[in-house]
Amino acid sequence: MKPVNIGICGLGTVGSGVYNILQRNAKQINSRANAAICVTHVGSRRDNPACDIGETRVSRDIFEVAKDPTIDIVVELIGGTSVAFDLVMMSIKHGKHVVTANKALIAENGAEIFAAAEQQGVIVAFEAAVAGGIPIIKALREGLAGNQINWLAGIINGTSNFILTEMASKGRAFPDVLAEAQAKGYAEADPTFDIEGIDAAHKLAILASVAFSIPLNIESIFVQGITQLEQLDIGYARELGYAIKHLGIARQSGEGVELRVHPTLVPAASLIAGVNDVLNAVMVDADALGSSLYYGRGAGSEPTASSVLADIIDISRVLENPPATWVPALGCPLEVLTAQKMIPVADIETCYYLRFSMLDTPGALSNATKIMADAGISIEAIIQKEQPAGIDYVNVILVTNRLPERCLNAAVSEIEDLSTVQGSVTTLRLEHLDQ
Amino acid sequence: MKPVNIGICGLGTVGSGVYNILQRNAKQINSRANAAICVTHVGSRRDNPACDIGETRVSRDIFEVAKDPTIDIVVELIGGTSVAFDLVMMSIKHGKHVVTANKALIAENGAEIFAAAEQQGVIVAFEAAVAGGIPIIKALREGLAGNQINWLAGIINGTSNFILTEMASKGRAFPDVLAEAQAKGYAEADPTFDIEGIDAAHKLAILASVAFSIPLNIESIFVQGITQLEQLDIGYARELGYAIKHLGIARQSGEGVELRVHPTLVPAASLIAGVNDVLNAVMVDADALGSSLYYGRGAGSEPTASSVLADIIDISRVLENPPATWVPALGCPLEVLTAQKMIPVADIETCYYLRFSMLDTPGALSNATKIMADAGISIEAIIQKEQPAGIDYVNVILVTNRLPERCLNAAVSEIEDLSTVQGSVTTLRLEHLDQ
Repeated sequence: MKPVNIGICGLGTVGSGVYNILQRNAKQINSRANAAICVTHVGSRRDNPACDIGETRVSRDIFEVAKDPTIDIVVELIGGTSVAFDLVMMSIKHGKHVVTANKALIAENGAEIFAAAEQQGVIVAFEAAVAGGIPIIKALREGLAGNQINWLAGIINGTSNFILTEMASKGRAFPDVLAEAQAKGYAEADPTFDIEGIDAAHKLAILASVAFSIPLNIESIFVQGITQLEQLDIGYARELGYAIKHLGIARQSGEGVELRVHPTLVPAASLIAGVNDVLNAVMVDADALGSSLYYGRGAGSEPTASSVLADIIDISRVLENPPATWVPALGCPLEVLTAQKMIPVADIETCYYLRFSMLDTPGALSNATKIMADAGISIEAIIQKEQPAGIDYVNVILVTNRLPERCLNAAVSEIEDLSTVQGSVTTLRLEHLDQ
Repeated sequence: MKPVNIGICGLGTVGSGVYNILQRNAKQINSRANAAICVTHVGSRRDNPACDIGETRVSRDIFEVAKDPTIDIVVELIGGTSVAFDLVMMSIKHGKHVVTANKALIAENGAEIFAAAEQQGVIVAFEAAVAGGIPIIKALREGLAGNQINWLAGIINGTSNFILTEMASKGRAFPDVLAEAQAKGYAEADPTFDIEGIDAAHKLAILASVAFSIPLNIESIFVQGITQLEQLDIGYARELGYAIKHLGIARQSGEGVELRVHPTLVPAASLIAGVNDVLNAVMVDADALGSSLYYGRGAGSEPTASSVLADIIDISRVLENPPATWVPALGCPLEVLTAQKMIPVADIETCYYLRFSMLDTPGALSNATKIMADAGISIEAIIQKEQPAGIDYVNVILVTNRLPERCLNAAVSEIEDLSTVQGSVTTLRLEHLDQ
C-alpha cells in the first residue's frame, strides 16, 4: 500500500478527533483508502496538543507543515480566514492536497482557493465545513449529481437549534439558554456568528454553490439570526401547528436564485421540525429524486472529524489519478459555474406569520383584515383569543399565503398605522417545504 | 469530452426514467461526469419502450447490448436473478462496467459478480438497489468511511411502509390497504417479496456488507413480514408512545453480527417514526459520527433513476483510472471482507411488546407478572383497561426490558400455559434506537 502522509494544522477539538480516529480505525481506513495513512507532522501553536501524538513531529510554525516535502495532504483545522487562508494557499503552492473544516474560509475565499488548486493540480476538500459529520456535500455533488436541485433548506447551526429547542420545549428565554449554550461549549465566547446567522450563511453559500453550480456568493444572502425571537411567538406557532427553526434556504427558479437565513415556521409534523438540540439536517428537493433529508451531528470533535477523514480517504485513493477524473470541488469544473440573477429579499416569496397588539373594539379586526384583502393577501389562519375583563388589547396572529416581502411590508405599514394597533407588527417567515 | 456510451437493458419504469433524465439534464450531467454520456443501445423485449428513444438502436435480445463493442456501461434494469445474472456476467466478461438497481441479484449473487468484475477490471455499481434514490451506499461506503458502524436500522420497503402508515393513520385493515397498494402500483401483482420482508432482507444484506465489511449473507437474516400485524397492536403501541415500522436492522458487536427484518415498535417521537407512506429512511449509528439518518424516495421511476445516474456519472469520470483507485464495490477490497459470527435469532437481544387475553380474575395478572419476574424480565410499561360488565377477558399489554429471544420465548410459553390466559401471546420487537 502506498503511504500517504498527513499534516494536521490545529490539534484542538477536531484535530485531536481526526488523530484519534485514525489510530482507532486504522486498519479499516487504510483498506478503504487503499493507502497507509499516517499523520507525520502536526502544526500546533501550543506545546500541549489536545491528544497524545507520540513521537509525531510537531512544528509551532504551522507553515512548516505546508512546506514539508514529505507531506501529501495538509489538514487545516485552525479556523478563521486570515492565517488559515495563507496556510491553505501556501499548501496548494507546495503541491499539497488540502482538507479543511473551515466554512468561513471556503465561503469567503473559495473562489481564489479552488482556482489556485486547479492550477496546481491538487484537491481542496471541505465536507466537514457544512453540517459537520453529515456527508451532505458528497450527497449533493455525487449522490444527486443527475438531478437539478430545486431548493434546499437546512438546520445548519447547532447552537441556534439548541437554543430554539430549549426555548420551545422548556419555555425558557433566549438570553438564559444562550448562557447555558456558552457554558456547555456549544456557543463560542463570542456567539455572534452562531446566533446572528453568519455561520449558517457561510454554510448556505457553500451548499448553494454545489447545488446550483453557481459561484460562492456570501454577499447576496439575506441573514437574520434568532436574537429577536420571542417565547410568545414560539407558543402561538405551536398552537397553529408549526415549530420555529433557524433555516438556511436556497432556491432556484426561472427568476433566479434566492439565498436566505432566518427563523422559519415549519409544519410541526414535518421531519425537519423533529430535528432538535444541536443536531443538523438538510432537506433537498431535486427534480428526479424529489425530497430527501440528511440528518446528523453538525459539530463536535469526532462527528466533524468523520467528514475530515472521509475527505482524506477519498483523496488518498485517487491522488495519483489525472485531476480531470477527480470530483470537482463544487461539483462541476470552475469554468462551468455560472452566476445567476440573485433575487433581492423584497422579491422573495414566502408565507408569513404576523402578530400585533390590537385594541379590542368593534371593527378593529375588520380594518386590519381589509388592508390584507385590499393588498390581495389571503389569510390562511388566524388566532384572536377572548381577553379577561379589563384588558383592552388583544394579540392577533395571522398566517398569510405566499407573497413577496415587498407586498407584505406595505400591508404591515398600513396595519401599524391603524389607530387600533399598538406598536409594531412582528413578522416571521413560514415555509411548508412542499414546493 | 470523452464519449461514454450507455446500453440500457430493460426500458420500463426505471429505464425510461434514466433515459428521460439523461436528456433533460444532459448539460449538467456531462459537466459533472467530465464525459459526453449517451444512450446508444437499448435492450428491450417489447416493441413499445416506455419512452420515446428516437433513433437509438434497440435490440430485442438484451445480450446484444452486453456484446456491443461500442458500449462502455451496461445498465441492468430487467430485474429478477436468472436472466439478469447472465446479462451482468456477460457484460463483465465483455469488459463493460455495470450499473444495476437489482437488490435480489446483488444480495444473492453479489460475491460471484464482484469477483468477476475485479478479475475483469470493471466496476459494478448498485446505489439504486437499496433505498431507491437515497444515496445510502455512497454515504456508508465513502461519507462514513472513517467510522466503525455499530448498527443501522432502515425503513427499506416502501410498500410495507405505505401499508403500515395507512393502517396507523386511518385504522384500516391489512388486506384492504394491500389491495389499494396493488391498485396504485406500489405493490407487485405478487406482493410476497414486499409484505413478507424478502425485499427488505435483500437490501439489508447489502447494507450490512458495506457497513461491516462482511460478505453478503442473505441466509443469516431473520425475516418477518407485516402480514400478521393487527390493527389492535398499532393502537396499543400508540397508547404506549410507539409507532410500528417494518425495519431492517443490522448490528455489530463483540459477540458478532445480527441481521433481522421485522415489524418493530419505535418511539413515536423518533425521527424514523415520522417516515410515512412509501418513503424510505436509514438510520446509522457510527463510532465517530454518532447517529445519522438518510431519508427519501425508495422507489419509483425517477428517484431510482437518480441513483442509477449517480453511478453512471461516477463511473464515467473514472473509467480510465487504475482499478485500485476505484471505490471498491463493498467499500473495501473483496479479500478484506471477513465473515463474522452471525448471532442466531434466539440470542438476539431486543425489548418486547407482549399482548395477551387474560381472565379478569384476582391473581391472574400477578401470576403472569411473576413468570416474568422469575425469568429476570423487567416490565417497563403495562396497560390493562377496565372492561365493561359482562366481558370476562381483558387485554394485557406489556413492554419488557432488553433480553434475548430465548428468554422471552420461555416466559411466553409459561404465560400461555396459565389457565387464566386465553390463546397465544402476541409478541413484537421494540427498539429505542438509542444504543
